[in-house]
Formats: sequence, structure tokens, C-alpha cells
Amino acid sequence: MEQHMISAMVKRVREMFIFFFLAIFSKAIGTKPYWKTIAPADSGSNQCLSWRLAVEANNVRGWRTVPIHCLGYIENYMLGGQYEQDVNYIVEQIQSYITDLVVADDGMDAWILDVDDTCLSNIFYYKGKKYGCDPYDPSGFKAWAMKGGCPAIPAVLGLFTKLVEGGFKVFLVTGRDEETLAPATIANLHNQGFIDYERLIFRTQPFKGKSAVVFKSEIRKQLMEEGYRIWGNVGDQWTDLQGECLGNRTFKLPNPMYCVP
Amino acid sequence: MEQHMISAMVKRVREMFIFFFLAIFSKAIGTKPYWKTIAPADSGSNQCLSWRLAVEANNVRGWRTVPIHCLGYIENYMLGGQYEQDVNYIVEQIQSYITDLVVADDGMDAWILDVDDTCLSNIFYYKGKKYGCDPYDPSGFKAWAMKGGCPAIPAVLGLFTKLVEGGFKVFLVTGRDEETLAPATIANLHNQGFIDYERLIFRTQPFKGKSAVVFKSEIRKQLMEEGYRIWGNVGDQWTDLQGECLGNRTFKLPNPMYCVP
Repeated sequence: MEQHMISAMVKRVREMFIFFFLAIFSKAIGTKPYWKTIAPADSGSNQCLSWRLAVEANNVRGWRTVPIHCLGYIENYMLGGQYEQDVNYIVEQIQSYITDLVVADDGMDAWILDVDDTCLSNIFYYKGKKYGCDPYDPSGFKAWAMKGGCPAIPAVLGLFTKLVEGGFKVFLVTGRDEETLAPATIANLHNQGFIDYERLIFRTQPFKGKSAVVFKSEIRKQLMEEGYRIWGNVGDQWTDLQGECLGNRTFKLPNPMYCVP
Repeated sequence: MEQHMISAMVKRVREMFIFFFLAIFSKAIGTKPYWKTIAPADSGSNQCLSWRLAVEANNVRGWRTVPIHCLGYIENYMLGGQYEQDVNYIVEQIQSYITDLVVADDGMDAWILDVDDTCLSNIFYYKGKKYGCDPYDPSGFKAWAMKGGCPAIPAVLGLFTKLVEGGFKVFLVTGRDEETLAPATIANLHNQGFIDYERLIFRTQPFKGKSAVVFKSEIRKQLMEEGYRIWGNVGDQWTDLQGECLGNRTFKLPNPMYCVP
């Protein structure tokens, strides 16, 4: 009878632990590891990685929104460290390319940087637009830009400073509308440390409704006609890096949240 | 005394289960999940993903070998399903682009496909070259190509067949040397189902030592002078897709194993 009592107790304790063990273990080997809450490494995220790669390699063009099933993936990409690492890696490549350049003393060695999501980050705006799963909202973006509160992208700010200190003339070329967004943009760049650029060039009336390729090509052409040698051209959009007078090297920063035509 | 015996037994059973539970649990939450043996999602693999993205977006150019610390990552990428998914996704984009094209009845609507790692896969060769961590070995590659045993890349074979059946003239343009590799390459393409292409164009004597951009641009220019309209141009190298007469659309297939200058 006592033997029976002992074995019953042992059995109850064992069952309790087996139950506890299975409860945890089943969580640990499930498709969604419990310590990752945003984007598990499942087939959906693999598909979204294929989509992101296709965007960055310019195989997918003129896309309007991020595929809705990639919302969690893009959120994790933008906030989880991989985006920052991708940007940093490309800036390292740029720094390495600059090391081999010799700046002349005529002050005509130039670089071109885009502004949105090149110098300044719009990630907090796009957080409210489902990271690009929502369609482009011109008035919403204008209201955001008017605040002048975009943070600098740290690696690009470091690059900017190095370029200026190295004797390059840095031209910031942006598709933002001069008439409405110039004061806020100038203030935002300054409050983030983008000071001592050579010129900040906005989209003006004659270029309204024209594609970024046409507008930015024309600006670069004018700079080259002024005698500038464009050593590098950095942007987050392929349309920053296509067309005429591209410069000696182009560098594509990642941006899976929106596509500028 | 009996009470003491019972509690000692219960304690022993409890310790046993706690030990067993911790042993499994510590494996499950470690940085390397035990069910992934090749490439854990650690910071090293994140760096290699940045490198691969930079290669595919043409930010890293003229590279000679895969970074040695990315060996495991690239092996997992090539064999673990992501490479295949990336290729399939781009081919889907191409198929979608083709849907909107109207083929004329003059037989002059053309496509250009590269051969190595576009139509035919060299993954089994590069497996023996540490997936590109070893430097390029011209005689080793020649010996491999002479065997004529490269498997087709399934999605590209499907695309090829669809193009031919859809009335496009498909030109296969390869940097392989005509003199030494023509018979083996023709046999290999045929044994893999690449039949009914319009022309297979090798690198000939005048183009030896010239860059792929120069060679392939010249070939495309000649085709356009013959009157062909190049609707699409598909390759795994950026040098397939740069230079003159690129065609209406270019598509970059992934290849993180080697870079053709």
C-alpha cells in the first residue's frame, strides 16, 4: 500500500514535469520561435527576401506598394538591424572607393547625394504607412516633411562630413518641391548636421510632373557644364542613378518601402 | 523515515527531469538553433547577406573571391532553397513582362540569354571551389565545361521554352571560348533541353582578352543592325547587362559565387 502511494506520487511528479517540458519544448521547435516576435524565418519571409533582392537589383520596377504579406518582414528588416547593416556596408564600400581618389586644387571635384532616405530617414513616417504597404500619400508626406524632424542616417552623415573635409563639393539633389518644402528641409538638414554642402537643389516648377530620371539628369548635366567632375552619386532609388551624366560611380542604398518613378 | 524516503525519491525524479529539461531548453534558445546546421541567423550571416545584396545591386564591383567567412552562408544560400527561390521570383517577373509584349510576324523579336549560371548551372563545379571562396581557376573550369554535364536551371529552361514557343528568336550569348568549348557546350545545352534557339554565339578570337561588356555590347549591336528588336536581356553578371544596345529590359539573375569582369 505504501509502495503504491510512493509510485503514485512519483508518477504524478513525472507527469507534471513531462507536461511542463513539452509545453516549453513545443514552443521552442515551432515554426515561430517564441523569442522572435516580428519575422520568423519561414517560407513567407524567404519570399519577401526574394522580393527585396529583386527590388534592389532593379528587377522589379515601378512598384507601388510593398506586398502586404511582407509587412512583418519589412518591419523586421528596417528596425531589426539588417537595414542599418546593409547601409553601413555600402558606405564602407564608398569610403574605400574615396581612399583612392585624389582631389584637385581647383575645387571642382563633386559628389551628389540624394536627400530622402539617403541623408535623412523617413522610417518613422513609413512606420505609420505600414512600411510602404499603404499607397503613397503625397499630402501625408508633405505634412511630415514640413515638420523638419527626419533623423540623419548616421553612416551617410559620417560620409558627408568626410567628403566635405576631404575637399569635395557636395551637392544635395532632392525631388522635394522647392516652393513648399525648402525652409523645412534646410532646417532639418542643418539640425541633423548636414552643413557646408555646396548647394541644395530642389525640384522647381519646370520639373514638376517630370520623372526623377529626367530632373536629376538635367541637374547633373548642368553641374558638369559648370565644370564639376562628379566622382560619386548616392541614392536610395534607381531613378537617382539612371539617365545622363551619372558620375564615375553610383551607389544604391537600400529602400524596400517605396519606389520613386 | 518513510516520509523521508518518499521526499528523497521525489527530489531525485525532479532533479532528473530538471536536468533533462535544461539540457534541451539550452539548445533550443542558443544562438545556433540545433535544427539548422549550415547557416545560423547570427551576425556573421547578416554581414554576408549585406555583402550578397551589395553584389546584386552592383555596389561591390570587380570582386575576385567570396569573403572566406561567408563560405557557410553562401553554401546554405545556394543549396538551401533561397537561391532557387530568388531565381524563380525573377523568372516570374520576366514571364509577367512577356505577357504584355506583342510579337510581330516579321520574326525579328529577339531575346538574349547568357549561358553560364543563366541557362546552365555551375553550382556543382563551384561546390569544389568553396562556392567561390577559392580564386578563379581557368583550366579547372575548362575541364568541367568540357564534360558537358551542367544541369539546366529549371526556371530558365521553362522561360526559354516559353520564349521560343511564343515566337521570339532566342540568342544565347556566352563568354565561353568557341575554339575549345563549342562542341561540349552545344551538346550540354541540347542534353538539357535548350533546343531551337536562333543562334549560339561564343567568344571568338577578336574578343579574347576583352571585357564581357565590350564583347556582349558588340554582339547586341550587330543583332540590332541585322534588324532584331531586343525585348529582353537576361544574365547572372552585371557585365551581361551593361554597355550598348542593352534591350528594352534587363534582368539580373543572382550569382554570389563569381564575378566576370
